[in-house]
Amino acid sequence: MKKTKAEILSMIETLKGLKTENMYLNDFFHTWKETDDEINAVFEVAEILRAMRENNISTKVFDSGLGISVFRDNSTRTRFSFASACNLLGLEVQDLDEKVSQIAHGETVRETANMVSFMADVIGIRDDMYIGKGHTYMKTVSEAVQEGYNDGVLEQRPTLVNLQCDIDHPTQSMADMLHVINYFGGVENLKGKKIAMTWAYSPSYGKPLSVPQGIIGLFSRFGMDVVLAHPEGYDIMGDVIEVAKENAAKSGGSFKIANTMEEAFKDADIVYPKSWAPYAVMEERTKLVGEGKFDELKDLEKRCLENNAKFKNWTCTEELMKTTKDGKALYMHCLPADISGLSCKEGEVDQSVFDRYLVPLYKEASYKPYIIAAMIFLAKFKDPSGKLTQLLDDAKPRIK
Amino acid sequence: MKKTKAEILSMIETLKGLKTENMYLNDFFHTWKETDDEINAVFEVAEILRAMRENNISTKVFDSGLGISVFRDNSTRTRFSFASACNLLGLEVQDLDEKVSQIAHGETVRETANMVSFMADVIGIRDDMYIGKGHTYMKTVSEAVQEGYNDGVLEQRPTLVNLQCDIDHPTQSMADMLHVINYFGGVENLKGKKIAMTWAYSPSYGKPLSVPQGIIGLFSRFGMDVVLAHPEGYDIMGDVIEVAKENAAKSGGSFKIANTMEEAFKDADIVYPKSWAPYAVMEERTKLVGEGKFDELKDLEKRCLENNAKFKNWTCTEELMKTTKDGKALYMHCLPADISGLSCKEGEVDQSVFDRYLVPLYKEASYKPYIIAAMIFLAKFKDPSGKLTQLLDDAKPRIK
Amino acid sequence: MKKTKAEILSMIETLKGLKTENMYLNDFFHTWKETDDEINAVFEVAEILRAMRENNISTKVFDSGLGISVFRDNSTRTRFSFASACNLLGLEVQDLDEKVSQIAHGETVRETANMVSFMADVIGIRDDMYIGKGHTYMKTVSEAVQEGYNDGVLEQRPTLVNLQCDIDHPTQSMADMLHVINYFGGVENLKGKKIAMTWAYSPSYGKPLSVPQGIIGLFSRFGMDVVLAHPEGYDIMGDVIEVAKENAAKSGGSFKIANTMEEAFKDADIVYPKSWAPYAVMEERTKLVGEGKFDELKDLEKRCLENNAKFKNWTCTEELMKTTKDGKALYMHCLPADISGLSCKEGEVDQSVFDRYLVPLYKEASYKPYIIAAMIFLAKFKDPSGKLTQLLDDAKPRIK
Repeated sequence: MKKTKAEILSMIETLKGLKTENMYLNDFFHTWKETDDEINAVFEVAEILRAMRENNISTKVFDSGLGISVFRDNSTRTRFSFASACNLLGLEVQDLDEKVSQIAHGETVRETANMVSFMADVIGIRDDMYIGKGHTYMKTVSEAVQEGYNDGVLEQRPTLVNLQCDIDHPTQSMADMLHVINYFGGVENLKGKKIAMTWAYSPSYGKPLSVPQGIIGLFSRFGMDVVLAHPEGYDIMGDVIEVAKENAAKSGGSFKIANTMEEAFKDADIVYPKSWAPYAVMEERTKLVGEGKFDELKDLEKRCLENNAKFKNWTCTEELMKTTKDGKALYMHCLPADISGLSCKEGEVDQSVFDRYLVPLYKEASYKPYIIAAMIFLAKFKDPSGKLTQLLDDAKPRIK
Repeated sequence: MKKTKAEILSMIETLKGLKTENMYLNDFFHTWKETDDEINAVFEVAEILRAMRENNISTKVFDSGLGISVFRDNSTRTRFSFASACNLLGLEVQDLDEKVSQIAHGETVRETANMVSFMADVIGIRDDMYIGKGHTYMKTVSEAVQEGYNDGVLEQRPTLVNLQCDIDHPTQSMADMLHVINYFGGVENLKGKKIAMTWAYSPSYGKPLSVPQGIIGLFSRFGMDVVLAHPEGYDIMGDVIEVAKENAAKSGGSFKIANTMEEAFKDADIVYPKSWAPYAVMEERTKLVGEGKFDELKDLEKRCLENNAKFKNWTCTEELMKTTKDGKALYMHCLPADISGLSCKEGEVDQSVFDRYLVPLYKEASYKPYIIAAMIFLAKFKDPSGKLTQLLDDAKPRIK
Repeated sequence: MKKTKAEILSMIETLKGLKTENMYLNDFFHTWKETDDEINAVFEVAEILRAMRENNISTKVFDSGLGISVFRDNSTRTRFSFASACNLLGLEVQDLDEKVSQIAHGETVRETANMVSFMADVIGIRDDMYIGKGHTYMKTVSEAVQEGYNDGVLEQRPTLVNLQCDIDHPTQSMADMLHVINYFGGVENLKGKKIAMTWAYSPSYGKPLSVPQGIIGLFSRFGMDVVLAHPEGYDIMGDVIEVAKENAAKSGGSFKIANTMEEAFKDADIVYPKSWAPYAVMEERTKLVGEGKFDELKDLEKRCLENNAKFKNWTCTEELMKTTKDGKALYMHCLPADISGLSCKEGEVDQSVFDRYLVPLYKEASYKPYIIAAMIFLAKFKDPSGKLTQLLDDAKPRIK
């Protein structure tokens, strides 16, 4: 299935037609801040980088340089994806460990941002746990390194990649979409396809909202029928709902909110059942953490888990899967999933469903390192198609 | 003592005569699963890589790529050896931290194996603490990435290097053997040499069995007289005993089990006194950990330590050393050793003995990064001698 | 402000005139062990490396190789500086984690030093917490790897960079001085400038003495009027006082100790107000840690904090700043600072003062990675100007 040189050249040709100037030396925060050309360029570059790697062509465009990762949360998958992306391009990763529970203050953030950036080409940040904080933190870092560059502190301005914030999870949603594009044989086949982004029960508490938000914010751009479903009270951010509505209108698709999994799954081409915490709970939690009220936090967790437990029937069963298009909807998840009878007693999905989709799930995840690498690439090269053509012509072997 | 280009060429010539096709894209689990040619090829490539480095010739054969390390145990030495080996070849290391005490389940292992392998060239695993688990874990990872490759999830199949499991410790035993080969001036001088692999007292509990198993499983291939000695009850795995017996028969050496250190040390050319836990205790421990019976674990530890204490006289003293061949047997240890009067009150070896062998001990350890690099090299290049010839011809300086 | 090729060539020309032979394959421990030529060479190489990077010229002189970092203390800044320096030259960093509170013993240090050095090109060590221990530890490591090399254990001898010991903090003081040289428009403008290195109050306890020691030990070489000020009892090491006196005499500057901040700040061109622990307290602390007397340690901390609290008026206020030369002395700090009203109630400096100097403070810090890289470079290349000329001629792009 390895792509030929002619196919790679043809993808580069497509890329050439896309306007990406504004991505140069810029950050990637939310997919809906990017134009259609920019979104398509990320997909194109990701596929080209993957095809080159599969053909043992080196894409090491940095002769040295650092990719700084800041994980304000534990993360194995995203950590490895970011490290893989950096390595693919020739950057070495340096992790900045910050205390998980600590909500950073402006001044400290500015100082640290500069201190770690003297030789940074890119900074990848994951900060998804506190509503109203993650994106703000990234903006503060972004501004701090811009000032550092303007003031002559930094010899270049590192660009930022959002590895998940409280609002969006663009590397996830774009990896998911690239998987969908490949699964359905091309972006042109997505019009009219129905995707069910639904809440699902999990015995754990407080999962971030950025996955469902990222999915509806991106998938609504492709003329699809996007349905969001969750139990009462499990709302996501209103701003993103607006984004999805506008996208759907523009793309000729639709967006609606359903109240049952059944309605969302009915005739769906794609289902994405996943747990998240109610927005209101996440807001209260952020407030309590900020005030150091840890007893009340425990109480909030308890209440939240009790409430979750009322919706154990929100789970992706074989029966539900049968109601999807031809009973064969593509099942998606950002992993790890809470699998009933395997990783927990009752969870998001039946084990038999999950097992049947193991290979697609792994493929879905496999796009993430390439998506991240594409985001870095487009932020670092003014003429990405020219650079890629040169790499293809040089055809320097990765394994010599 | 730096080797000349002619000497390196001659080693490459030797390598050319060895059949290594089956190592290509394959894993390295146990030395006894490898043919004599394959074992010799590892030694040869290790020496060539070392000679090249000593001559400031770069052996960076990967232009980018990742070496994933999984240490289900704390480890400074093996961690640095693996990192050094990867760096020598151009791979960047990414550590996968897993909880030390956790025995992983199949599904999770499969998922994680794929998630960290999207750009992995090699995976090094150390998992030696639980009998019946370490090797099984490695096999699961190996199969998972093979499936991942077959299913189009991974663009290549990373190969595995066993950095120590419950059964074998091939990077240790092969570094040890390369040290012995150099110490005695060539593999042809090993026939008839006596090695005493003996248990020794240590105040710590539960040291893995893979070192003695690895030593008898490998050293018995070289026509040596291999003697294993331990107190009653401190048996090692029966399967490996069988391997040693067969090897000895084939190689024209011998293998026997002695009941005293005195018998083992008598006229020995090499002594390897080292503590380990009884196989039966390790089995019970694995069971108790699996069942989460931590009180019983403590009790097991207490009983084991009490039992150990009965054999404090199993220690490598100056008196015992005098009984070895000319009183000058080569003392070996995988380090760190429990040194009586230095790191503990009573331990595996007298301080004066240990101190006298400091330089040989460090040399012994110095082979490990090159052994690991050789294992990776042979798994990644179909024509290793051709690739090494090319590196020698190019003679690209490592320090420019 | 990017330097031109002609300017870089002119700096290389200057470097050519400096004697650096003794730095080759040598360690960097204390600035006062280096000749003026050697100190100037570090500044020159640091500036050249920075200018090359700003011109996107690769300075990757190692095709593979390891920089080992040993932090016997938590450190984000120094860790990133060392990692950046290594990356700039082509070395990959491997961290050796040692327990923070552990004072290592000779034998263990020797063994570990060899075990991590089989492929190490450079070892960077930070060990500043225990008086009489940090430098000793570094010397032990240095001797161990020298022996390892002599004995044929190591194929090369890694060189050491002192990333902060109990006596000196050369990468900090030299980054500080390079900042000062640039700030005042050249080293020739420093003669007669007054610098106040003063103690300042901090609510935290036991900050190391190596910063004030490093500053007076280095800044006294440039014909400046160096004033050290601290409350009674907050003495620093007498040996370093002697160094500063001798340097001042030789360089035509002066060195004196004042008893008040007011006296030190009066007409100062540069002020460096910073907390540290009294030498006597640090000595007692080291003793108590060594003896495992943790209750007494807590008591010592309590007494020390109580004593500190008597000197809360030792703080860098706007009023004090007004008394400096034209009210505009350059404010310096190694960061992070204890800022009154921001990071603590009462601290080393008023927030308004700190904020006004934010950009200079960040610039000050920005020199450190280049200083470290210069130290490594000079230890690894016998003909540094020749090597730099070659890099400039090749002009290989860092971002391709």
